[in-house]
Amino acid sequence: MQGNAVVAQSGGPTAVINSSACGVIQECQKHRQIKRIFGAKNGILGILHEELFDLGEEDPQAIEGLRRTPSAALGSCRYKLKSLEESRKDFERILEVFKVHDIRYFFYIGGNDSMDTADKVGILAKEMDYDLIVMGIPKTIDNDLAFTDHCPGYGSVAKYIATTVMEAGRDTEALYTADTATVLETMGRNAGWIAGAAGLARRSQQDAPHLIYMPEVPFSIDRFLDDVKAVYRDLGRVFIVASEGLVDEEGKYITAQEGMFAKDAFGHRQLGGVAETLKNIVEREVGIKCRFSMIGTCQRNAAHFASKTDSDEAYLVGQMAVRHAVEGTTGFMVTLQREDSPEYRCTTGLARLSDVANSLKKVPREWINEEGNFITQQMRDYVRPLVLGEVPIKIGPDGLPEYVRLRRRLIEGRLSPYSVQS
Amino acid sequence: MQGNAVVAQSGGPTAVINSSACGVIQECQKHRQIKRIFGAKNGILGILHEELFDLGEEDPQAIEGLRRTPSAALGSCRYKLKSLEESRKDFERILEVFKVHDIRYFFYIGGNDSMDTADKVGILAKEMDYDLIVMGIPKTIDNDLAFTDHCPGYGSVAKYIATTVMEAGRDTEALYTADTATVLETMGRNAGWIAGAAGLARRSQQDAPHLIYMPEVPFSIDRFLDDVKAVYRDLGRVFIVASEGLVDEEGKYITAQEGMFAKDAFGHRQLGGVAETLKNIVEREVGIKCRFSMIGTCQRNAAHFASKTDSDEAYLVGQMAVRHAVEGTTGFMVTLQREDSPEYRCTTGLARLSDVANSLKKVPREWINEEGNFITQQMRDYVRPLVLGEVPIKIGPDGLPEYVRLRRRLIEGRLSPYSVQS
Repeated sequence: MQGNAVVAQSGGPTAVINSSACGVIQECQKHRQIKRIFGAKNGILGILHEELFDLGEEDPQAIEGLRRTPSAALGSCRYKLKSLEESRKDFERILEVFKVHDIRYFFYIGGNDSMDTADKVGILAKEMDYDLIVMGIPKTIDNDLAFTDHCPGYGSVAKYIATTVMEAGRDTEALYTADTATVLETMGRNAGWIAGAAGLARRSQQDAPHLIYMPEVPFSIDRFLDDVKAVYRDLGRVFIVASEGLVDEEGKYITAQEGMFAKDAFGHRQLGGVAETLKNIVEREVGIKCRFSMIGTCQRNAAHFASKTDSDEAYLVGQMAVRHAVEGTTGFMVTLQREDSPEYRCTTGLARLSDVANSLKKVPREWINEEGNFITQQMRDYVRPLVLGEVPIKIGPDGLPEYVRLRRRLIEGRLSPYSVQS
Repeated sequence: MQGNAVVAQSGGPTAVINSSACGVIQECQKHRQIKRIFGAKNGILGILHEELFDLGEEDPQAIEGLRRTPSAALGSCRYKLKSLEESRKDFERILEVFKVHDIRYFFYIGGNDSMDTADKVGILAKEMDYDLIVMGIPKTIDNDLAFTDHCPGYGSVAKYIATTVMEAGRDTEALYTADTATVLETMGRNAGWIAGAAGLARRSQQDAPHLIYMPEVPFSIDRFLDDVKAVYRDLGRVFIVASEGLVDEEGKYITAQEGMFAKDAFGHRQLGGVAETLKNIVEREVGIKCRFSMIGTCQRNAAHFASKTDSDEAYLVGQMAVRHAVEGTTGFMVTLQREDSPEYRCTTGLARLSDVANSLKKVPREWINEEGNFITQQMRDYVRPLVLGEVPIKIGPDGLPEYVRLRRRLIEGRLSPYSVQS
């Protein structure tokens, strides 16, 4: 099918989501069916507001530079469309924009909310007899999408978190007579994939982290205190990694944080504060000084130390989405399939957008030890290949990384302005 | 003078303090006057407790590996000795340990508290007619030692903070429609050197950080809100860097954090919580969503992206301390002297320990703009050369950095056990 294409990025940025965009763009440029490839400014919002830019007008070097540039260069958003009925107006507007710009290919890079949106756009297009190819491209540091072995973005955050814990762990090791314990909080709303990856840093008993807590195992303060005391007795220091999404036995978040922005636009509770909560518990109940770190968005944008495996796979899923699309495949997300071989090998597959949208992949219970305070060898074996290799970075004359920025010159709008539904 | 030497590390670790230790050790091994070079386990505590290890017994490859290993491989401490009168017992114990192990050279790597301790050990030795050479080696990420152009450890934290702000800034830029503002808190108890270094990340108007707050300028909530609103109006997003040591017009810390460990062993108030405080102010008063990050000890141990200039200079000051010592110099700290040349060149000098001990170098007011919310070109010119170059890291087969760890096999004690004074 001849027509234009649009690519959009959604949700939390990662160190390699731009690598996926680059894969989409460069592959689109190889296929004659695709006349122009537009970028949408800030995900689905850019489509709703008809804020599109022609990626063919960007400097090809800048496009190539996306492979080493963190965050979402097209712009991202957290705007969530609801059901086709509830968000009908928005969905119809999307198709209206597609029609007026002859967009026949829609590539959406994101997590399960984005796959849900993409799926529904495809369904409505079919209903309305508008020929449209919709392909999803996985992206989430949380690594919680099902039907794919892992998600682009995860390998880089895993590499960075493990390295950071290794380094900060040496601090606690050197200064245990003063700062005896440390809690480092990782992202991971529903699953412990990121926190668990920190376990790679522990090559020997004395290495940090000594304890890892993930949302998959209900958190018990009593067990936690026993764990901390035991490590403290053995090593004289304790380094703890905890996921932001820790819940107690009743399923309630253990965080202390409250406030007027306690929920994000998707209605998800904004987390944070686990580290501080645990620090206070350790100081009060164990009586040792405890520091804490919340590295926040730094962890998902650390392109200065990204995983080459991750970056290359991020490019690949973008590229494959286009190849499948031009062959007429629609309504699928490209997946990563780990081959059953002694050496790590990974190919791509396809999963229905609707399946991915309604699923959530947690860390299997057997990848967490019985005590619920560390990962097992199975999890190690799973994560290890994903952090291999480093993406070469370009350092400027000022000693700092040089990341690209696209010009994003918006094309002229043809429709009247639109107010989004929610 | 013939005899043994001891090297010790004190205070908060850095990405390059081991480089200084390596400089001391390797240089000591070149001089026949120095028979054995001991490491003290955990700074002055290791001397008080007669916990020494022979660095000549370590694998020379491990010693060389110190140059790419973060934190304090000898072990560090925050134990503070008071005046010669008040801490007499401790000071005498130190000399007793020195005598029994024929230690004639004492190299202390640390900040101004450590220079104070080293100075007093030297004074007491003289009083007691014990021939002892005492040399200080500067180390602090805070960069607040006087009589030296800058301090080893600072260049690396500056490089890392600027890079991290550049990366996290791209996150805010991509996702401003949801997460509109971000506050990143840096270390820096009394001076804004670290927060100010983040300014290097801002190569153009749109780059983060947009606002920087340092302890040198009394913090006013009203001015802060005006600043935030102005940036938000211009760019639609705001990235703020704030030093942990921010004080209001009355000199009071603006932090919210309280608790039973509110002060460290030196009696310094434990800071932290500035970012969360500012985040709450922004959300409440400006009405935009704000994230925050407290990267804590990660910032001072980020050897995976350390400054080569910093690492080389850290080695140099260690090496020069030994060269001066064997020539009979005592009671001095090695300083870094920036030459007055168009290209950055740095040599070493000497400053009296007593002078360094009682001083604190803040960021000059004229290096901060009039509004008190960003650095000026002078500060840029000062920091820029210090972040240049990258220290080659060794990556293991698991894709993570390989840092060395010393064996630290303690020599047999000859004295009875000792209880430290405070």
